Amino acid sequence: MLLQASTFFEFYAEYPVTSIFMLRSKSEHAQIIRQEAFLTTPLLPLSEYIDTHGNICQRTILPAGITTIESSVIAECDMHIDVNTDAAYVAIEDLPDHVLQYLLPSRYCEADKVGAQAMEIVKDIQSAYAQVEAIRQWCYSNLYRQYGTTNSSTSAMDVLGSRTGVCRDFTHVAISLCRSINIPARMVVGYLYELKPMDLHAWFEAYVGNRWYTFDALMEQPVGGRIIMAYGRDAADVAFASHFGEVVMVKMEVKVEEVKLS
Amino acid sequence: MLLQASTFFEFYAEYPVTSIFMLRSKSEHAQIIRQEAFLTTPLLPLSEYIDTHGNICQRTILPAGITTIESSVIAECDMHIDVNTDAAYVAIEDLPDHVLQYLLPSRYCEADKVGAQAMEIVKDIQSAYAQVEAIRQWCYSNLYRQYGTTNSSTSAMDVLGSRTGVCRDFTHVAISLCRSINIPARMVVGYLYELKPMDLHAWFEAYVGNRWYTFDALMEQPVGGRIIMAYGRDAADVAFASHFGEVVMVKMEVKVEEVKLS
Amino acid sequence: MLLQASTFFEFYAEYPVTSIFMLRSKSEHAQIIRQEAFLTTPLLPLSEYIDTHGNICQRTILPAGITTIESSVIAECDMHIDVNTDAAYVAIEDLPDHVLQYLLPSRYCEADKVGAQAMEIVKDIQSAYAQVEAIRQWCYSNLYRQYGTTNSSTSAMDVLGSRTGVCRDFTHVAISLCRSINIPARMVVGYLYELKPMDLHAWFEAYVGNRWYTFDALMEQPVGGRIIMAYGRDAADVAFASHFGEVVMVKMEVKVEEVKLS
Amino acid sequence: MLLQASTFFEFYAEYPVTSIFMLRSKSEHAQIIRQEAFLTTPLLPLSEYIDTHGNICQRTILPAGITTIESSVIAECDMHIDVNTDAAYVAIEDLPDHVLQYLLPSRYCEADKVGAQAMEIVKDIQSAYAQVEAIRQWCYSNLYRQYGTTNSSTSAMDVLGSRTGVCRDFTHVAISLCRSINIPARMVVGYLYELKPMDLHAWFEAYVGNRWYTFDALMEQPVGGRIIMAYGRDAADVAFASHFGEVVMVKMEVKVEEVKLS
Repeated sequence: MLLQASTFFEFYAEYPVTSIFMLRSKSEHAQIIRQEAFLTTPLLPLSEYIDTHGNICQRTILPAGITTIESSVIAECDMHIDVNTDAAYVAIEDLPDHVLQYLLPSRYCEADKVGAQAMEIVKDIQSAYAQVEAIRQWCYSNLYRQYGTTNSSTSAMDVLGSRTGVCRDFTHVAISLCRSINIPARMVVGYLYELKPMDLHAWFEAYVGNRWYTFDALMEQPVGGRIIMAYGRDAADVAFASHFGEVVMVKMEVKVEEVKLS
Repeated sequence: MLLQASTFFEFYAEYPVTSIFMLRSKSEHAQIIRQEAFLTTPLLPLSEYIDTHGNICQRTILPAGITTIESSVIAECDMHIDVNTDAAYVAIEDLPDHVLQYLLPSRYCEADKVGAQAMEIVKDIQSAYAQVEAIRQWCYSNLYRQYGTTNSSTSAMDVLGSRTGVCRDFTHVAISLCRSINIPARMVVGYLYELKPMDLHAWFEAYVGNRWYTFDALMEQPVGGRIIMAYGRDAADVAFASHFGEVVMVKMEVKVEEVKLS
Repeated sequence: MLLQASTFFEFYAEYPVTSIFMLRSKSEHAQIIRQEAFLTTPLLPLSEYIDTHGNICQRTILPAGITTIESSVIAECDMHIDVNTDAAYVAIEDLPDHVLQYLLPSRYCEADKVGAQAMEIVKDIQSAYAQVEAIRQWCYSNLYRQYGTTNSSTSAMDVLGSRTGVCRDFTHVAISLCRSINIPARMVVGYLYELKPMDLHAWFEAYVGNRWYTFDALMEQPVGGRIIMAYGRDAADVAFASHFGEVVMVKMEVKVEEVKLS
Repeated sequence: MLLQASTFFEFYAEYPVTSIFMLRSKSEHAQIIRQEAFLTTPLLPLSEYIDTHGNICQRTILPAGITTIESSVIAECDMHIDVNTDAAYVAIEDLPDHVLQYLLPSRYCEADKVGAQAMEIVKDIQSAYAQVEAIRQWCYSNLYRQYGTTNSSTSAMDVLGSRTGVCRDFTHVAISLCRSINIPARMVVGYLYELKPMDLHAWFEAYVGNRWYTFDALMEQPVGGRIIMAYGRDAADVAFASHFGEVVMVKMEVKVEEVKLS
């Protein structure tokens, strides 16, 4: 299905602030990028670089006052995610070198503290794919979606305590649980068609059966219609906006719609 | 100035052929990317990756029959290039590690064979910038622009023999001459406003005064209005299309126009 | 001074466990590597790869039973660290792209939570170098060195609460404080001559005056005689040994001595 | 078998010259590095960095006068190379992204010019492994080993003309032939036990059956006992010494011997 997704930001800064955005997508397996646009008002100098995860980052300086950013993308998206309930555990000795980092604890994913919880969730479950799916369902069933209970400092351990959070929190818990049983897991951020309420979204991928598979702890039944913007170890790697100074986000509007290209 | 640049390709293949394109731009110093589009007909699976030079590469499989590709970009471009006639030679011991590779000979740039020629061109010229400019002017004045005299196997040495070629050939000669006197030089490909006849274009950058400066051996007076698509050591690194099988390019149309965004 | 440093490990595993070590050094500014040795008993298959921070990693599988590893290095080391009390703050907009990641919070360094503390420490201090030095001294004076009070889950926030820890804990606190005032800081692990008691050591570097400078929150007066083994955002990136399974470290002995090469 | 390999260089420079060496090995599949040493006389500042092929490079400044460099390594080496005559051709669409560059022409390997020759050599041969082996044997049988007939400017095409050369020339021809039939091939340099006459050696690897296999166009029957120092597209990427100025190599001695570690 052809999807058009866009984010409109309005930022306010008292004085100029360096900011980094991660708002560009690359074509891959389940998304063929057809069109992208990125417009700042006022027109700002912009330079792009590739980070260590392969994400395309936009670096600019927000001037004092109001800046608006409109970022949009049109992509042909797979409306189903690949599912393979038999996908097997990949022994750590067989993992590619670059996948190993996704087994380590990271800022928001204290994988080193949740092993007992994970073992309880996956016990008696055979395939690694099914274990990850059990972890995903456990998160979906045992965590409660609630805005305003967590913030940019909240980690997986905090969420396991409070049992509440938003998509990034659910994802941090799921990633931590996977890593604690030696299944590599990484965070993904992007757009999801028909997400309610509409917003930028976070989900995760797990490396089983020799490739990455998509999982989403916020959805009862994961669906496709996703446009990926960035990959990372957790939210610290994939913030859609990082401001190195004080910036107020006055407004943020996200839309994802089906379109027809003429 | 706001420029819209586009390339329309029509390819014909007898049987499916893997192809790699380099047709996406990143925002940087003299170009702010506002919009990009990439459309294949029929719609083809596409995956993008970053090569060792930081270029965004599109990988696909052209099916048997006709495939068209329309790639376009809208960018706010600087209409002047930075000029700094005093920019000094950077001693090799002070070059950043990642710049060193642009001193080595490469497929089309036999820097190891043209030192005497370069010395003759730059003798009595003081600053490194002025030396590169002298090399550029020498190429402009001593090489003759002629289509059909060179092909994808033609190297700088061949061109120094025949004295004829197109932009990529001029650029290979200039790069080889710069490297032979230990000035790092790299190839750039992209769009150039008002190029006549309009086509994709190749020029070069030299590292002097601790940064890369733009030079163009095909123009009497280099101008701005450029949209960079890829960087590399020479044409082997930055082919806009690499086909791993037999593909006929039936048609290729390039346009660069001033636009106003509503 | 020519230093010989070595680590002797004895590990015990019930069943085979994949392990990654970071025990090799590269020559750089203050250390010229003259000799290195790495010996496992029994002799184990070993493959090395480069991680995203440029560290050389050793990957192997510890068999069931006892494995010993002897890693040693001989290096010509600078016995003084570079000090530049005037080194100025580098505005974020002027930082190289690859330095930006050292401003973000990481697993053990909650830079997002310690800004008020940092402001209090550096208030009225002018140069960025002097600010980092004030942070270093604050850590040295206000944290108490005590083994056994922290473990591999302890973060900077935990240490700021308990005020006790070992070199890695002191370093996490100092890094977090630096980042919270927008000074890039990274963790360094390696050997330090005359450290008492002798052990592998952790310290940090801060990016001021357009380069990285060495700081050590564990020493009253930082000294040279250091052999760096790895760089990273915090201890999660630079563990000298990561075991993906249960491994007991039966013994670990570190030595650093002055030597003469015949 | 435990091998000790060493190179002794004596260089002479009139004035200081920046030089880059590639003389360090990493442990991998068929070589477990046990000890390394690198000694310059006089003792020179040295910094090491990782190039885009993952090689560890030593960067220094040779002073005016004589400099000697002794580089040595002790490694446990596999005395056999892996052979798999059934290893199949990997379709280009299935090659990992980072392998693709080894299909392109490079400075010394004009893969774009030797397709007809390659087709003639491999016709009627089924598996890709067997095709590469046929190319290797063709080079061994049709090229004549002769010192002094080629130099650092000699490319595969030159060698196909003269039919003479040394190991690097044989390797360039073999690599070009492989790439021309869409089999990825890369150059390897290092030590080879019992090479006669003893010298640093160059051979190649081809990517078939989803991994790299070792081939050596200089040997009637390829053997193991190899210690790899660097990988690249051709000799331009893997020069053991690159001098950016005039340097005379007064002496070079290579030894490879079996040893016992006490």
